[in-house]
Amino acid sequence: MRTFVILAHKAPLTHEFSLNDLPGGAGRIDVLCRCVTASFCLSHGIRKDVQVYLVFQNQLVVRLHGETLRHLNPDERSTAALLQKALKAQSECVGEQEVQSTSGIFVSRRGLPQLLEQLQSQNTKIIQLHEAGAPLRNTVLPTNCAFLLSDHLEFDPAEDALLSQALRLNLGPKSLHADHCITIVHNELDLREIN
Amino acid sequence: MRTFVILAHKAPLTHEFSLNDLPGGAGRIDVLCRCVTASFCLSHGIRKDVQVYLVFQNQLVVRLHGETLRHLNPDERSTAALLQKALKAQSECVGEQEVQSTSGIFVSRRGLPQLLEQLQSQNTKIIQLHEAGAPLRNTVLPTNCAFLLSDHLEFDPAEDALLSQALRLNLGPKSLHADHCITIVHNELDLREIN
Repeated sequence: MRTFVILAHKAPLTHEFSLNDLPGGAGRIDVLCRCVTASFCLSHGIRKDVQVYLVFQNQLVVRLHGETLRHLNPDERSTAALLQKALKAQSECVGEQEVQSTSGIFVSRRGLPQLLEQLQSQNTKIIQLHEAGAPLRNTVLPTNCAFLLSDHLEFDPAEDALLSQALRLNLGPKSLHADHCITIVHNELDLREIN
Repeated sequence: MRTFVILAHKAPLTHEFSLNDLPGGAGRIDVLCRCVTASFCLSHGIRKDVQVYLVFQNQLVVRLHGETLRHLNPDERSTAALLQKALKAQSECVGEQEVQSTSGIFVSRRGLPQLLEQLQSQNTKIIQLHEAGAPLRNTVLPTNCAFLLSDHLEFDPAEDALLSQALRLNLGPKSLHADHCITIVHNELDLREIN
């Protein structure tokens, strides 16, 4: 299972946004949509062995589970519509319990600390994709790990503090979009599987 | 200069499409939009040393030139609006001459054969990204080359015939979206520049 965690700093906490203005009115939810596509979409199919956690403003977590994920297309607008349904479904959330909005998409009222606690309890090592990290290509990865990225904004000090024990890795000399990082990580792991 | 050529088999030849339905009514122009983003967009800026040729149904070529490209944002919808302006500007085309629609974006009435002829006359070696190719990571690249990809459809027999002399390279064991291929090529070239 490959796991990605994306921290969204401005993405909306309600479903009341227009699909016609994803970068503006919808708080750069376009970034998240591209991350979802990069995480799951192959040329003709879905990567089933992937799990993605989108952390909205440290308050909501939307989890996408490749094995059961349905209705995902590669374009931003239709992905945003799926996330909109997840945001709408949060009204049914009780405590930190997850609610399924559409097949393979779940929403819960939690923040990054609670998510990290869950991952740690599953013995998942956090790998923070960070410009100051060591090169991914030269690094032997833990068997059970989750790649954690920030959206279009830098990690804030509170996040850096929570992630102080994470392994920091870097993908190359350029500062890249989060979805491009996911694509590169997948390619590296795909190549390692055949070599 | 890094050059990418993307063959679009269904993308519209007119500007009369809705920005609200890029995958459907607009002939999968969403694929081209993501290719443009992957080609040019860094986390905070544009790759200026990039040139992209989008070949629409073997009849129109839209060229995007990083050095002078303006108004490009990473989301699909705004990129589609730029391509829409280019398609509209074709009405001003005379012969095979290019017309600039917005800064750094040019349209001309040409097909793949004419574009390949131009690239060959500039001593540019064509590299066809193809599942049956040799691994990119093990391959020394020609100094002057253009990476050529197909959109969501396979290369057709006429294209394969035109590309019979191209170097075929492969990026890994999975069949990937064209924009993901561009991201991986950029990362490989970025890493080669520092190693």
